[in-house]
Amino acid sequence: MKNNIERKESLNDLIEQIDELLESSEFSENSNDNSVDEKHALIKNLVSKKNISSLESLLDDLHPADIADILESLPVQKRLVLWDLVKSENEGDILIEVSDSVRQTLIADMDSTELLAAAEQLETDEIADIAPDLPEEVLKDLLENLDIQNRERLQSALSYPEDSVGSLMEFEITTIREDLTLEVVLNYLRKIKKLPNHTDKLFVVDKDGLILGVLPLERIIVNAPTTIVKNIMAKEVVLFKPEDLADEASNAFERYDLVTAPVVDENKKLVGRLTVEAVMDFIRQESDNEKFSMAGLREEEDIFSSIWKSVQNRWAWLAINLLTAFIASRVIGIFEGSIEKVVALAALMPIIASIGGNSGNQTTAMIVRALAIGQLTQSSIRSLLYKEISVALLNGLIWGSIVGLFAFYLYNNADLGFVMASAMMLNLILAAIMGVLMPILMHRLGKDPAVGSSVLITAMTDSGGFFIFLGLATLVLI
Amino acid sequence: MKNNIERKESLNDLIEQIDELLESSEFSENSNDNSVDEKHALIKNLVSKKNISSLESLLDDLHPADIADILESLPVQKRLVLWDLVKSENEGDILIEVSDSVRQTLIADMDSTELLAAAEQLETDEIADIAPDLPEEVLKDLLENLDIQNRERLQSALSYPEDSVGSLMEFEITTIREDLTLEVVLNYLRKIKKLPNHTDKLFVVDKDGLILGVLPLERIIVNAPTTIVKNIMAKEVVLFKPEDLADEASNAFERYDLVTAPVVDENKKLVGRLTVEAVMDFIRQESDNEKFSMAGLREEEDIFSSIWKSVQNRWAWLAINLLTAFIASRVIGIFEGSIEKVVALAALMPIIASIGGNSGNQTTAMIVRALAIGQLTQSSIRSLLYKEISVALLNGLIWGSIVGLFAFYLYNNADLGFVMASAMMLNLILAAIMGVLMPILMHRLGKDPAVGSSVLITAMTDSGGFFIFLGLATLVLI
Repeated sequence: MKNNIERKESLNDLIEQIDELLESSEFSENSNDNSVDEKHALIKNLVSKKNISSLESLLDDLHPADIADILESLPVQKRLVLWDLVKSENEGDILIEVSDSVRQTLIADMDSTELLAAAEQLETDEIADIAPDLPEEVLKDLLENLDIQNRERLQSALSYPEDSVGSLMEFEITTIREDLTLEVVLNYLRKIKKLPNHTDKLFVVDKDGLILGVLPLERIIVNAPTTIVKNIMAKEVVLFKPEDLADEASNAFERYDLVTAPVVDENKKLVGRLTVEAVMDFIRQESDNEKFSMAGLREEEDIFSSIWKSVQNRWAWLAINLLTAFIASRVIGIFEGSIEKVVALAALMPIIASIGGNSGNQTTAMIVRALAIGQLTQSSIRSLLYKEISVALLNGLIWGSIVGLFAFYLYNNADLGFVMASAMMLNLILAAIMGVLMPILMHRLGKDPAVGSSVLITAMTDSGGFFIFLGLATLVLI
Repeated sequence: MKNNIERKESLNDLIEQIDELLESSEFSENSNDNSVDEKHALIKNLVSKKNISSLESLLDDLHPADIADILESLPVQKRLVLWDLVKSENEGDILIEVSDSVRQTLIADMDSTELLAAAEQLETDEIADIAPDLPEEVLKDLLENLDIQNRERLQSALSYPEDSVGSLMEFEITTIREDLTLEVVLNYLRKIKKLPNHTDKLFVVDKDGLILGVLPLERIIVNAPTTIVKNIMAKEVVLFKPEDLADEASNAFERYDLVTAPVVDENKKLVGRLTVEAVMDFIRQESDNEKFSMAGLREEEDIFSSIWKSVQNRWAWLAINLLTAFIASRVIGIFEGSIEKVVALAALMPIIASIGGNSGNQTTAMIVRALAIGQLTQSSIRSLLYKEISVALLNGLIWGSIVGLFAFYLYNNADLGFVMASAMMLNLILAAIMGVLMPILMHRLGKDPAVGSSVLITAMTDSGGFFIFLGLATLVLI
């Protein structure tokens, strides 16, 4: 048995080792132009025979999640060489584990036959996860090869949006009837031998498949074999519908400490189950996505993706940023006459804009979180606004005095100090109001407040800050 | 049975309802000055008798997590009135569920006797969670009231840092010996009646408590009662040590789809267990903390906290921001002479700084994630740097041309357009280099790259952008 940290360290060593084994062969940067088959032949030639067998034996004992990690840590060329050496029976599991962007590079390297073989090793709900990345004809072939039940399941899984319970749920469920004794249940379970992953409870349904309750495994174990299911099953169950938001579901999993939960249709008929595994993956992905969007990336990026792909992933936010910067620049443009007369204004104005943006984003971060966990009621918005404006006033007094004194000290001009202090105060108040109202407004409009708010608030505190400061300066100084 | 969404909606209704019941009584804003006892008396008088019993019956059926939610959604005054109405046997569980900042407001409202009673309802690992918020004498009393085993557990839990496995682990474990038959195991389990939360496996230990393997509940159920534990237990187990980083542990839980895992000391002796519940709470809290720090809040903030507390929570980052803004301002100050001659520079310079910051943060976000999942090997840093500089060159060409044309069009000055385009290109390259190296450097120094990098990079692309643009302009135009 290995401790997790030892495992992790040996994985890091392995990555370096694999990297080295691959390094010893020279790759032509142009191999991109070749067809898949030619590339495979090329690769086989490039990596020496001895290295290939060392690599294959290294890969043999690894968990698919670990191989996925190694693939993600390798630049695209080396990644594809290694991918070629992975046993084909592991390919499906690995495709599930890698990130979307890395999966695309792997799938692009496989032909239809390989893809079909890999996908057929997977559960229906897993196929649904990678379906968006599969070429259309492979997906069509896949659907044709499935039996009716699984085809319907796949089609329904594909019909739900990515952030819904339907897209996260699994179809493998163990159900029992309420009038059985535990002995009969145990005999049944011994016959089917294997329970679905993460099974912590069985679902109790009637003859039409409507859910009646759940029976935790624990209760099967600790109760006498003669007990009737009905008498010990839990009837208070947290249920989900396929169209529920995955976000709400993950909150419920945390709140009620669930491991699995039934998913039912509008008639309470059992259609699938949600596991903590899917929920945890979702939480992690959401949090990653949010961080990426906040930093201005359109989506998760393979760190080794091509230059052109990176440019595409990043251009949208750069364009928006450029637009807001142009607007701020034009606001300053209005006051060029004033700046010409008091050039110190040019040096001081970024301070007002910058602190405003910082302060506004602090407020927004709090409101966004309160919105996410449903903590904001109609009646509390007013008191929040009152509080944030008070904080802004107090901060305005403190920081306004500091920047005012700074300006006075540097330029020996009391009026300039006064303008600086007042502008700081006003821009902090603007930031507070926008910081509270903008995320609430976006939330009401059904947009994600985490992403857009920050950009909009910074845009306002920039342009607004320049306008307030230069406007005041023009009134007082010029 | 209620669908989760119905549950959630009824919870929101409930919050509004409770809010209203409390609204009908007038609160004196000065009650802060009164002692705890006086406050309680005051509150009882303020809320009408009828409302009290309505509130109490509303609270009666709620899950502690739901009551925690309601408390978090209420402004401090109302929150304390409601807290006063919560049944004392629920107080412990609710204190566990609320956020740190809200817990502080609740604990401040309780006297030592109440606190002691609430804490005594909790498991040792739960007491450890709230211990940092307890007054010292309550913690001392608590330790004295515990039996030796639990006192030692609490002391050891308190000795581990917040981000370690030791601080997340639970002490309640069900262990068995490897030479038993499943029948004996089942009889034993039926005798103890209740398994710890989330139990998906039993831990198999030898007579000294050293871990030998784990026995999933599933295997107890699907195998014949005559089977010997040893023959069906899993021997490949992911183990953790109390001093392991919680972050690594949560990665392992996701990677290997764990529900519970054993925690062992250096001799492989079982000391506790880690559950997916604790891991999921940790992941959520980490992601929240990161978002707060990125937005410049020192820690999670109760949205209804006092103005003074908010100012304290926010001042540190505002001060850092002010410092970097002062530096940027002084960089501009160097070039005041140039700005006086070509005032357009003042209007254009924020564009260069802003896009640089945006682009640098895009790069950093990717690198930070790659560092977090251990995706960055020594050999890949060079190729990453190469890639990011290439992206910056391409972006510099695209966006540089746009801003260059913008400047040329506005001011009808080709040299100004050229300066603008070149400065953009150079600042994007600076952003790319810093965006790659800064998080790696912070990671090597043992700092959290997610938080500091963004501030540092923005500072550099601001000051650097101003310097590059104004410097180039001075060379070319003046």
